[in-house]
Amino acid sequence: MSRAGACMSNRATCAIIIIGDEILSGRTTDANLPYFARRLDELGLVLRETRVIPDSIAVIASTVNEYRAQVDFVLTTGGIGPTHDDVTARAVADAFGVPVERHPEAARRLESYYSRRGTKPNAARMRMADMPRGATLIDNPISQAPGFQIENVLVLAGVPEIARAMFEEIVPRFGRGTPLVTQTIVTTLPEGAFASDLAELQSRHHRVRIGSYPIYERNRHSVHLVLRADDSDLLSTAAKDVDSLLAQLSRSPKDRS
Amino acid sequence: MSRAGACMSNRATCAIIIIGDEILSGRTTDANLPYFARRLDELGLVLRETRVIPDSIAVIASTVNEYRAQVDFVLTTGGIGPTHDDVTARAVADAFGVPVERHPEAARRLESYYSRRGTKPNAARMRMADMPRGATLIDNPISQAPGFQIENVLVLAGVPEIARAMFEEIVPRFGRGTPLVTQTIVTTLPEGAFASDLAELQSRHHRVRIGSYPIYERNRHSVHLVLRADDSDLLSTAAKDVDSLLAQLSRSPKDRS
Repeated sequence: MSRAGACMSNRATCAIIIIGDEILSGRTTDANLPYFARRLDELGLVLRETRVIPDSIAVIASTVNEYRAQVDFVLTTGGIGPTHDDVTARAVADAFGVPVERHPEAARRLESYYSRRGTKPNAARMRMADMPRGATLIDNPISQAPGFQIENVLVLAGVPEIARAMFEEIVPRFGRGTPLVTQTIVTTLPEGAFASDLAELQSRHHRVRIGSYPIYERNRHSVHLVLRADDSDLLSTAAKDVDSLLAQLSRSPKDRS
Repeated sequence: MSRAGACMSNRATCAIIIIGDEILSGRTTDANLPYFARRLDELGLVLRETRVIPDSIAVIASTVNEYRAQVDFVLTTGGIGPTHDDVTARAVADAFGVPVERHPEAARRLESYYSRRGTKPNAARMRMADMPRGATLIDNPISQAPGFQIENVLVLAGVPEIARAMFEEIVPRFGRGTPLVTQTIVTTLPEGAFASDLAELQSRHHRVRIGSYPIYERNRHSVHLVLRADDSDLLSTAAKDVDSLLAQLSRSPKDRS
């Protein structure tokens, strides 16, 4: 997880752990990474890596320990419900070497929620109030059962509606970041027509990160060139150079396809 | 990456590496994991873990080395085009400690493809024929530029249309696997109503893996109970027990919500 570019060096870093057999088996498509990734980027944080791992206490615990030493914030999603395959709280407690214990405020919220609904707060339901010792709560405005934070590890639900609501609850904990400035230039030239020149531009504008993303849509081909930097002057200078390069190549008919 | 369940112990194992800054920044939503995961499951392989990592030679190389020692097959997707941010071939070569060199058959295919299209096979385009020494090709029926395999690492394109075509090309290399048998039971009971009993059923049917997945759709709530095993008799016995449990709980009105 070394930093690839020099241009983002003062930003807080994140890693995401997506927990769930159902994603690894292809039964369920994860919808949390796209949301979290986009929001973290908007907030000025750098998402360094993401892992999708099974509902295994040992794997979750070792992944949490690996990441929490490497990044500022670790987000997990999945495995905090009432059933036997929900093992995230146990695993995170193991990662920190602390016991799981009933969190009084979480228990109060669950009891109040079930009482309002006329539902029995049975042992399985109250298990959702069992958290690593020292955890603080992450509010769940949808179905009350809270997520939790322990040190730099933030444990969120897997159900996307709840995961997103919890994410928005924790935004203030990230502190103020400065989003990268970004510009996308679309061209119908193929990557091979400009790749060498673009590499030269990239090395000249080393504080701007230039990505090249070919898009195939219904047999129409285009390339999105995405420029990202933490300084808008640097960005616009680089963007002008990319524009000039593409304009020049577009006038050179022999290399257009 | 320890194996979580005992029921899948003879299956070939896989890990997937998704390479791309654009996925970590939230700009692009990965579409390859859902496809690969579903197909691997259908083919009887076990997907143990997936990582999304940046376009960094060092990170790609270390991830490849970590995974190739742990699983039977490592699949990578992304980073094999002609632009400066396509660094996967270089990184995989570093992982194996071999040089990158021009692959003659890959070069022949690219030259023939560009010649047919009247396009110049310039340096950037021909760079797509540069691969780790010892690599064998993975056909690309869409745009010719091949993927490659070195030992147990299979390097595929990132563009979903090409990634899927390459995946189907490599299916025979996985050998014959036996897909798990699976059954999904849908209930409108909430997880909390059956979680304790289901945990007891899970421990009785230890060769069947029972997952519980709550679904929220337009305020309608249901739970999908997914049973997976490598033996259909064991599966159907467990499924009958789950059915009986749910039927019994449905008759008990006090715990229905």
